[in-house]
Amino acid sequence: MLASGALAHGGITLFSSPAPRFAETEERGIAIMGKIRVAINGYGNLGRGVEKALAHAEDMELLAVFTRRAPETVVTAGAPVVALRELPSWVGKIDVVINCGGSATDLETQTPQVAEHFNVVDSFDNHAHIPAHFAAVDATAKEHGTLALISSGWDPGFFSLQRAYGLAFLPAGETYTFWGPGLSQGHSDAVRRISGVKHAVQYTLPVEENMQRILAGEKLELSTAEKHRRQVFVVLEEGADADAVREAIVTMPDYFAPYETEVNFISEAEFARDHTGMPHGGHVIRIGETTPGTTQVVHGELKLDSNPEFTGSVLAASARAVARMAAAGATGAITLFDVPPAQLVAADPAELRQHWL
Amino acid sequence: MLASGALAHGGITLFSSPAPRFAETEERGIAIMGKIRVAINGYGNLGRGVEKALAHAEDMELLAVFTRRAPETVVTAGAPVVALRELPSWVGKIDVVINCGGSATDLETQTPQVAEHFNVVDSFDNHAHIPAHFAAVDATAKEHGTLALISSGWDPGFFSLQRAYGLAFLPAGETYTFWGPGLSQGHSDAVRRISGVKHAVQYTLPVEENMQRILAGEKLELSTAEKHRRQVFVVLEEGADADAVREAIVTMPDYFAPYETEVNFISEAEFARDHTGMPHGGHVIRIGETTPGTTQVVHGELKLDSNPEFTGSVLAASARAVARMAAAGATGAITLFDVPPAQLVAADPAELRQHWL
Repeated sequence: MLASGALAHGGITLFSSPAPRFAETEERGIAIMGKIRVAINGYGNLGRGVEKALAHAEDMELLAVFTRRAPETVVTAGAPVVALRELPSWVGKIDVVINCGGSATDLETQTPQVAEHFNVVDSFDNHAHIPAHFAAVDATAKEHGTLALISSGWDPGFFSLQRAYGLAFLPAGETYTFWGPGLSQGHSDAVRRISGVKHAVQYTLPVEENMQRILAGEKLELSTAEKHRRQVFVVLEEGADADAVREAIVTMPDYFAPYETEVNFISEAEFARDHTGMPHGGHVIRIGETTPGTTQVVHGELKLDSNPEFTGSVLAASARAVARMAAAGATGAITLFDVPPAQLVAADPAELRQHWL
Repeated sequence: MLASGALAHGGITLFSSPAPRFAETEERGIAIMGKIRVAINGYGNLGRGVEKALAHAEDMELLAVFTRRAPETVVTAGAPVVALRELPSWVGKIDVVINCGGSATDLETQTPQVAEHFNVVDSFDNHAHIPAHFAAVDATAKEHGTLALISSGWDPGFFSLQRAYGLAFLPAGETYTFWGPGLSQGHSDAVRRISGVKHAVQYTLPVEENMQRILAGEKLELSTAEKHRRQVFVVLEEGADADAVREAIVTMPDYFAPYETEVNFISEAEFARDHTGMPHGGHVIRIGETTPGTTQVVHGELKLDSNPEFTGSVLAASARAVARMAAAGATGAITLFDVPPAQLVAADPAELRQHWL
């Protein structure tokens, strides 16, 4: 797969002469043969999700987990834990670093920094800031001859792919994204900040009736609030006023006020039993007309028991593609839009064509 | 997009030095600037579907329709009709030929022939013969410096992409493909050959109950007959024996005998009113576990009013990608597995990232 100087893939020779960045790529220690050497940067829910995904990838190995915490306080499933400040001394030993920090505080700083020395993957999901993040990472990666895949995961990521194919194959149409049923961390945090709330989770749910109308081919104009409703489960502090808490939730601007919101008060035992997972999912629907009155519907759906484990799995596959494309000489910033699907899969191209086409 | 010597795309420079095939590519007349020049080879339902799709593509133009019939007997929506034997004299004037013949008789011969002179796209869908067809096309295309994308459409094609991403993102799991509700041309033809049948259509339908169990996360082992049932609408010849026709249908080996088959007899007027469209669709479902007991479901669905118009739309987008990738120096055979999604879309990469990621 990572043949010297040429990435022969799917029968197409991408490079007939040595790729210009190939020598420098070798200096960086790209694994031309053998397993793809991966490091995880940040060991929260997402970092653990990536670690679990790598256990399914026989062509990849997890070399180390880097952390800002004291390494001796971090327990992995087996990989050595290393202080993040030591990362630069690993140049030449790692093919791809998977940045598992948060979009709010970490990735905008960390991904360009890591791209100075390593190929890198991140899950940057602040849609409004993606163009700026892409530009910053692209400049650094091009200057240093590395390859950086940003904004991978499920949305942005898998859902972005669904949107792009919908646009490609049905250029005249409308695209709808519905999120849920799924846990929203941001909305859960907002509820937890209300006085009297001990524990809380918020689930985003699609408005099923409107989604079914769209799936049946209707072109509706819907606001976000017409596409989603909100379901909250709260454990109250001893003596807290349930009505006041409910009122504080349903009237909260932006977060809840525009939405149909259902508030449920439950016991601490029920909370522990039913609400500690991190499910998520949703739907991307493209309704197009190829000729007037001829309606074509493309629909993608995810139903995830664990958001961080699926996101981690997409990041692991993305790291595989980055290692292969970097070895073939690619540099700069990319997204999943720029990755041939075959590059994400462990199976070789002939097997993929024979059994999966 | 088709910048000279380098395909700068998604921030990644695929070629930092002139691509080796680029000069020869220019000799073949690849449109470096301006619209992508497309020809349709074969003007049946699929050819007309491609023609309709190209009407939505402002970056592409349909230069000619090639046919084996007498050109004066073929009426297009506007493109000139040319005898197929004249195709070689169009070298240098066409960027991509879209082969719209049938898999049973035409494409195995035509696609290698066309690839001697032109970049080409086909919808070859005989799964068992794909490896041999790929090898034959790849050898010719590499020898002549052309690029050929085979087996595009909805299945193989869009559904193949769904299967590949499912495999990439959930490597431990099972993949299920359900076809329908949709018109099967082969099964309709088989019914029409029965004595006493004047008109007939056959719809393939997924066995809804089994599909819902899988969507709920169950891993079932299902035969094709457990995944699909068959629904037939027949207009009888005057005086034909309905019971004999029904018996001939439901006992037909391979085609109907293994399946739950429903046979309906209708009038010629009902047939004309309700059964002359070519709807199709189906579902690709990947059920995976990222850790034991943590189930993740990836589900893709198509609901198509017109199979040939959607297939034509996928072929048109594929032709766009082929023109761009050929201009960047790619040669040989490829499938949609080898195409970065951004190459299929008319929008430029920055717009795609900003609005569709």
